[in-house]
Amino acid sequence: MTTASFTIPRSVEWKDEKIILLNQQKLPHVNEYLEITTVQEVWDAIHTLKVRGAPAIGITAAFGLAQASLTYETESLEDFYAALKKDHDYLASSRPTAVNLFWALNRLLTSVKTAVSVNEAKTLLTHEAIQIQIEDEEVCRRIGENALSLFKGGNRIMTICNAGSIATAKYGTALAPFYIAKERNIPLSVFACETRPVLQGARLTTWELMQADVDVTLITDNMAAHTIKTKGISSIIVGADRIAANGDTANKIGTYNLAILAKAFEIPFYVAAPLSTFDPSISDGSEIPIEERDPKEVTHFNGVSIAPEGVNVFNPAFDVTPHELVTGIITEKGVLTGNYQQEIKELFKEDN
Amino acid sequence: MTTASFTIPRSVEWKDEKIILLNQQKLPHVNEYLEITTVQEVWDAIHTLKVRGAPAIGITAAFGLAQASLTYETESLEDFYAALKKDHDYLASSRPTAVNLFWALNRLLTSVKTAVSVNEAKTLLTHEAIQIQIEDEEVCRRIGENALSLFKGGNRIMTICNAGSIATAKYGTALAPFYIAKERNIPLSVFACETRPVLQGARLTTWELMQADVDVTLITDNMAAHTIKTKGISSIIVGADRIAANGDTANKIGTYNLAILAKAFEIPFYVAAPLSTFDPSISDGSEIPIEERDPKEVTHFNGVSIAPEGVNVFNPAFDVTPHELVTGIITEKGVLTGNYQQEIKELFKEDN
Repeated sequence: MTTASFTIPRSVEWKDEKIILLNQQKLPHVNEYLEITTVQEVWDAIHTLKVRGAPAIGITAAFGLAQASLTYETESLEDFYAALKKDHDYLASSRPTAVNLFWALNRLLTSVKTAVSVNEAKTLLTHEAIQIQIEDEEVCRRIGENALSLFKGGNRIMTICNAGSIATAKYGTALAPFYIAKERNIPLSVFACETRPVLQGARLTTWELMQADVDVTLITDNMAAHTIKTKGISSIIVGADRIAANGDTANKIGTYNLAILAKAFEIPFYVAAPLSTFDPSISDGSEIPIEERDPKEVTHFNGVSIAPEGVNVFNPAFDVTPHELVTGIITEKGVLTGNYQQEIKELFKEDN
Repeated sequence: MTTASFTIPRSVEWKDEKIILLNQQKLPHVNEYLEITTVQEVWDAIHTLKVRGAPAIGITAAFGLAQASLTYETESLEDFYAALKKDHDYLASSRPTAVNLFWALNRLLTSVKTAVSVNEAKTLLTHEAIQIQIEDEEVCRRIGENALSLFKGGNRIMTICNAGSIATAKYGTALAPFYIAKERNIPLSVFACETRPVLQGARLTTWELMQADVDVTLITDNMAAHTIKTKGISSIIVGADRIAANGDTANKIGTYNLAILAKAFEIPFYVAAPLSTFDPSISDGSEIPIEERDPKEVTHFNGVSIAPEGVNVFNPAFDVTPHELVTGIITEKGVLTGNYQQEIKELFKEDN
């Protein structure tokens, strides 16, 4: 037996009642881990994007609320709940639209309903926060296992954005198979699109794969076709922000480009996502609103302008890939590969 | 009759024996026009990329050699030719691989072979340099007219890189139809891909179209599919660096992506290029060598690193679009639209 000599970076850990948080704002140049001990610091870390990725935000907030509760100096459950609700609301205000944030914080509130003492409540909260992290790690690991079953040793695989370990508890979604492969000494190579305008591919995906000694090569987004052709890319794998009932997938801008290229080059195009990313209430992708962001993301780099002042800019943050371009949707419960409408319906029937 | 109230920027002009050169290094933030009066300044302007674009470089070098000859204080034709050859060789060393540079300088040398006096030689050189500029402008204008015949008022057209006025004598190639349309009050909208890694689209194409009040919107390269779909792009037009005998087209990296997207969305994909861009000696695109450039173009912006130190980078400067993805090749002699192999052969037969 050999011991793995590589590191799969985590964005957040719970250690001796402290939250150890990777400061993603300083990546890729500085690996800074913050020791967080107050609810204000947690709020600030989420608000200023020191932690990003919906699951990682949810876990951080949960740890933040559990940590806050440990400081409540009361034996009255009523006072305890009042304080907890106050900190819950405060943490929930750190990001306006992060569903995982609200979901994780509510889960903690629910977990203490049966508590008969303040001490028990404190224990339950810490337990529940750790549980959320464990469950997310398990989901990501299963996605990675299922994704890896679609790859072969020596494959070269393209990805975009950062559906990675530091966006989740561990492993990530689209990047999970590369870590599992590393554990098993299966050689895979990753080609990471830089992902303009915010450069999550250049800044985060390359960094975290390099930490784990996964072979990764950075390209600009417009090099995808030439790279697929000349480097023999065998498949493309991406994460997802929201998947409609028919399999249409909203993900980081540029995903749709890659799906069209995959079809043209006749290579598989995979979406890796947990069940929590599916939104069966939306019948197809046309119902998914696409956020348009500040033109400065496109026209400026580190505050320096690269385009004429006053130029018109179109800056959609996401695009929607039609389900017919998706070869398979890789979940923790298996790989959907055909009639998404039917498969997704059954997946959520089972869940009930 | 109304007078056009817009400006099509030129990169180089001959005025009172001075060369007026747009300093493209300072675009898009500073519109600086240099007054060049010495052969050293011309060499420096070409070498340091103050002027770029193969035709514009050739014209600048030709003006430089004509200007230099005006300073030769001799009545001996032999001494004159010796000085001319020396400056010719000097200017030819300003860029190592620019075919237009050598072609223009040689054309000037040839133009004085019949001169019977130094004065006549000086006149012939100035005349020939101006002639090169006039011819290039005429070629670009015809390309623009031919391209415009493929567009309709109200069309929204996508482009990449800068096949523009400032890369040529005037008008450019892929951008020429937008200026002709402007002259005729035909409304066209341009969507310019920023063109990573060097950002010719963001820095140059947006700037020059804005000078002429052409409606232009900047997007990042990975937004192309979403933009084609949601903005109703009607066609894509690009320039070319080299076209093989079968129509395979080498152009700025990212062109191949766009050609595949055009096919997927069933919109025309046009290449605009003068006959001088064709290389009938090359049977297909596989024979075109693709230059790989400094990884720092990808990993750095204005000297600031955006990726982990030591990351692997693949940085091809060009890609090759297979001829079957090209709806039409727009030249000064008309639009090729079908059997490129045959049409290109006939085009060059006619020329002889």
